[in-house]
Amino acid sequence: MDDELGALPPKSQFSEWYNDLLWRAEVMDVRYPVKGLYVWYPYGFAIRKHVYSRLRELLDRDHQEALFPLLIPEQEFMKEAEHIKGFEDEVYWVTHGGTTPLEVKLALRPTSETAIYPMYALWVRSHADLPLKIYQIVNTFRYETKQTRPLIRLREITSFMESHTVHTTWDEAEAQVESEIALTREFYASLCIPIIISKRPDWDKFPGADYTIAVDTVMPNGRTLQIGTVHHLGTHFSKTFNITYEDDKGVQQHANQTCYGISERCIAALIGVHGDDKGLILPPAVATIQVVIVPILIGKRHDDVLASAQALEAELKSAGFRVKMDTRDMRPGAKYYWWELRGVPLRLELGPRDIDGGKVMAVTRLGEKKPLERSGVVEGVNGVLAGIAEAMKAKAEDHVKASLCTAGSIAACNASLNEGKVAVVPWCGDRACGDAIEEQSNSSILGTEARSPYVSAEGGACVICGKPGKATLVGRTY
Amino acid sequence: MDDELGALPPKSQFSEWYNDLLWRAEVMDVRYPVKGLYVWYPYGFAIRKHVYSRLRELLDRDHQEALFPLLIPEQEFMKEAEHIKGFEDEVYWVTHGGTTPLEVKLALRPTSETAIYPMYALWVRSHADLPLKIYQIVNTFRYETKQTRPLIRLREITSFMESHTVHTTWDEAEAQVESEIALTREFYASLCIPIIISKRPDWDKFPGADYTIAVDTVMPNGRTLQIGTVHHLGTHFSKTFNITYEDDKGVQQHANQTCYGISERCIAALIGVHGDDKGLILPPAVATIQVVIVPILIGKRHDDVLASAQALEAELKSAGFRVKMDTRDMRPGAKYYWWELRGVPLRLELGPRDIDGGKVMAVTRLGEKKPLERSGVVEGVNGVLAGIAEAMKAKAEDHVKASLCTAGSIAACNASLNEGKVAVVPWCGDRACGDAIEEQSNSSILGTEARSPYVSAEGGACVICGKPGKATLVGRTY
Repeated sequence: MDDELGALPPKSQFSEWYNDLLWRAEVMDVRYPVKGLYVWYPYGFAIRKHVYSRLRELLDRDHQEALFPLLIPEQEFMKEAEHIKGFEDEVYWVTHGGTTPLEVKLALRPTSETAIYPMYALWVRSHADLPLKIYQIVNTFRYETKQTRPLIRLREITSFMESHTVHTTWDEAEAQVESEIALTREFYASLCIPIIISKRPDWDKFPGADYTIAVDTVMPNGRTLQIGTVHHLGTHFSKTFNITYEDDKGVQQHANQTCYGISERCIAALIGVHGDDKGLILPPAVATIQVVIVPILIGKRHDDVLASAQALEAELKSAGFRVKMDTRDMRPGAKYYWWELRGVPLRLELGPRDIDGGKVMAVTRLGEKKPLERSGVVEGVNGVLAGIAEAMKAKAEDHVKASLCTAGSIAACNASLNEGKVAVVPWCGDRACGDAIEEQSNSSILGTEARSPYVSAEGGACVICGKPGKATLVGRTY
Repeated sequence: MDDELGALPPKSQFSEWYNDLLWRAEVMDVRYPVKGLYVWYPYGFAIRKHVYSRLRELLDRDHQEALFPLLIPEQEFMKEAEHIKGFEDEVYWVTHGGTTPLEVKLALRPTSETAIYPMYALWVRSHADLPLKIYQIVNTFRYETKQTRPLIRLREITSFMESHTVHTTWDEAEAQVESEIALTREFYASLCIPIIISKRPDWDKFPGADYTIAVDTVMPNGRTLQIGTVHHLGTHFSKTFNITYEDDKGVQQHANQTCYGISERCIAALIGVHGDDKGLILPPAVATIQVVIVPILIGKRHDDVLASAQALEAELKSAGFRVKMDTRDMRPGAKYYWWELRGVPLRLELGPRDIDGGKVMAVTRLGEKKPLERSGVVEGVNGVLAGIAEAMKAKAEDHVKASLCTAGSIAACNASLNEGKVAVVPWCGDRACGDAIEEQSNSSILGTEARSPYVSAEGGACVICGKPGKATLVGRTY
C-alpha cells in the first residue's frame, strides 16, 4: 500500500497530513459526491462510538437523553430574531415532498433551540418541573460556503451533542454553565486533549445568548479549534417561546436557560493533537483497538506460537480490552506499519523466544518497548495503557503551554501568530479596539477570562488604545 | 393525573389506547408542530436505547457499523429507475441553502442504497474484499400522504437500521438473507414478539430487489404490522452503481447484494403487542426501569424502612439491574398506578413486616404477587424477570396462533378478516387472482412460503380461479 499510494505527508505539513491520514487510516472517506459531506468508515465509526459513549456516560449522571425532529417549520425557526440572523444564510430548506411544493418550508436543524423550545413550553409548568436537563446527539446541517474540511467544517455535522437545560433563576443557570464546563474538562481529559476555556467577545457569542463560554484547543499548526461551547441564554428564548413556570408563590415566571454543544470536532482534535508522522495515535480510552497481537508465525513453532497467541487474546478479551489478533500472511514489519498508521496504542509481539522466557514483548505507539511477564499480563497491559495516556496528555499539554505567548503590542502579537502561536494581549474590551486587533493581526479574539494555568490573569495597556486592558486570547482559528 | 386527564381508553379500543398511551407513559410527544414528526421523551428514548443496543449486539457479531450522509444528490438518486419509481412521490427535496438555490437538488434519504452504493463501488475491488457487511442506524424521511401514526407511519423515521451486504455469488447473497432472518428471529425473541416470515408477492417487493422476505406481527386489532424486511438485490444495483470485483481468475464480475431493514416499528409492536388496559408492559430485557422499589414509609419505622430499601436498591443496582426507588410523597396506590402505566415489569414492596420477616414482596406487571427471600434477592429477581418474559412470549404467541385462520373461499377469508384475523388462503400465484383477492377482501396479500408453525404448507384450490394454489397470508395491514 505504501508503494502504491505514496507515503503519508509529514505532520509538519499539517493540512495535507490531516486530509491524507483520514482516508489512509480509514476514519473517513472524503469521496462522497457532495461537498462537505463525508462517510464514516467502520474503523472511524468505532472511534466515534467510544468517544460518544464516554460523553453519554458523563452526561447521564444528571441529564436525560431524548430525541427531537430534524425538520423545523419556518414559522418556529423564524421566531427568535437574533437567532435566525445568526443562521439565515446557512440553513438548508426542504421545499418539496415528491413533486409537491410544501405549504410550510422546513429547515434542516442547524441547532435545535427552535425545535426543542416549543416542546419545553408544553413540558414546563411549575418550579417542581425544574431544573430540566435534556440532551440529544444528532445530525445537524449548515450550508457552509467557506472551504469545508472533514470533521471540522461540515455541511452535515453527523454527531452534534446538544444539551438544553431550563432553570428558575439566572444564577441557577449560571451554575449549570459551570457544571457543563466541568463536564467538558472531564470529557477532554479522557481524550488526553488539553483545553483552553474563555469567554467569547460579545460579537462572537451564540445568537440569542447572554454570554458564551468557549472551549478551544491548539492544533499542531497553531490554529485554534473550537471544540465546545456553553451558552447562558437568560430569558431570551423563554420569552420568545413562552417557557414559563409557576413559582412557589403561584406567579408565572419566564425560565432561565442554557445550551451546550460538542460536535465531532472533538475527534478532529483527537486526530490532530495526538498523531505523528506514522499516523494516528489513539488514546487508549477511545481506541477502536487497544491492543494488537502480532504472533511471529515462522518455522516449526508455528502452531505452538499461534496457540499461545490465541490464549493471550482470550485472556485480554475476557479482561475487557479491545483486542485484535493479526494472523494475516504478511511480513511482521508490514503489520507494524499497518497498525501504527491506525493508531493502536499497544502492540504485543509474541514469538518462540518470548514464550520460552514467559514473556510478551510490549511496543507502545509512542515507541517504547519492554517485555511484560506473561503471567501477570492483564495488569501489565493496564499499566502500559495508563502510561501511554499519561504521556499523551503531558505531550499535548506541553504543546499548548508552548503555544501561548504573551504579547504587549500588535507587532509582538503578529510575530507570535506568525510563528504558529496563540497570543495573549491586553485589550480594553471596546468593540472598536477588538476590531482593530483582529484586523491588524489577521486573526480572531478568542476570549477573555481565560481559565488556563498558562495565561496570567494580569492585564496591561490595551494594545490599541493604551487604556487598562484584560489578558485576551488572540488566535488564528479554524 | 388520572382525574385531571381522564383515564386511558381500554385496549379493546386499540387506536385510541395506542395514541393515548404514547404520551401518558411518556414514550412520545405527539404535539410537535409538523405532521408525522414526533418527539421521543427521555422515558421512551431509553426503551429505544435498550432495543437498539440489543440489535447492535446481534449485528456486531458479523457486521460493522458505519455512517453515510443524509443528503443524496439528485443524479445518484435518479440512477436506478425501478428504485426511484418506488420512492419518487415520497422524497423530501432540499432545494435551497440560505436564500441560494442549490445547483443540484438534494434528497433526504428515504433509504440509503443510493448514498452507500457509490461508495461501495470505490471500496470493493477484489473477491478478497468480500463479503462486505455494513449497517447504519439513522434517520430517514418519507413524505407520507396517508394518515401518519407515531412509530408506525412517520415522516421522519428516527431509528432506521439498514444493513447492506455485498457478496460474490447470488447463492452467497441468498445465504446472507437467511442469516439476516435468523438474526431477526433472535432480536424479536428478546422483545417477546412473535413474528411471521413470508415472501412478499412480486408487486410488493422492494423496488430493485430480486425478492423480498418480510417479517410481520399481528397487532391486537388484527392488523398486521411489517416490522422488518430482507431483500435479495441480485446484481440490479451493482450494475447501476458499477460495484464489481475481480474474481480469482482475474475477471471483473458484478457483485450480488442484500439489504435489510428494521425501523422503530419494532417499538410500536412492543407497545401494541404487550400492553394492557393499565398501560405499557415492557419486556425485562429492554425496559427503561426493570425494577421499581416502593418502600412503605409510614409511622415510626420510616427511617428503618428507608435504610433497608436503600440497601436493597444498592444490591440490585450492583447486580446490574435497572432499578428505580420511588420515595415520592404519594400514596403507595398512586405510585403503583404510575409505574404500571409505564410498564415496569417488577415492583418490589418493602414495609416493616417484610423486613421483620426477611422478605420482599414482588408484584409483577402481569399481576402475580409473591414474597422473595431478602437474602437471595438477586437470584429471586432474576427468576421473576425471566418468568415475566416467558409469560409475555407465551401470551403473544397465543394471540398470533389464534389470529391465523385458514379460509378456502373469499367469503370465508372475509369473515376471518372481519373478525380481526389474518386469513390463510390458497392462491395460484397469478397477479390477476392476487389483485382479485385483495380487491374482494379489502386487504393485502402478505406473502407465501410462510415460515410459521401455525401455517400449514399445504395449499388448495385458488380461491379465485380454482387452479392449484399455495397457502398465502392475507391481512389488513398498517
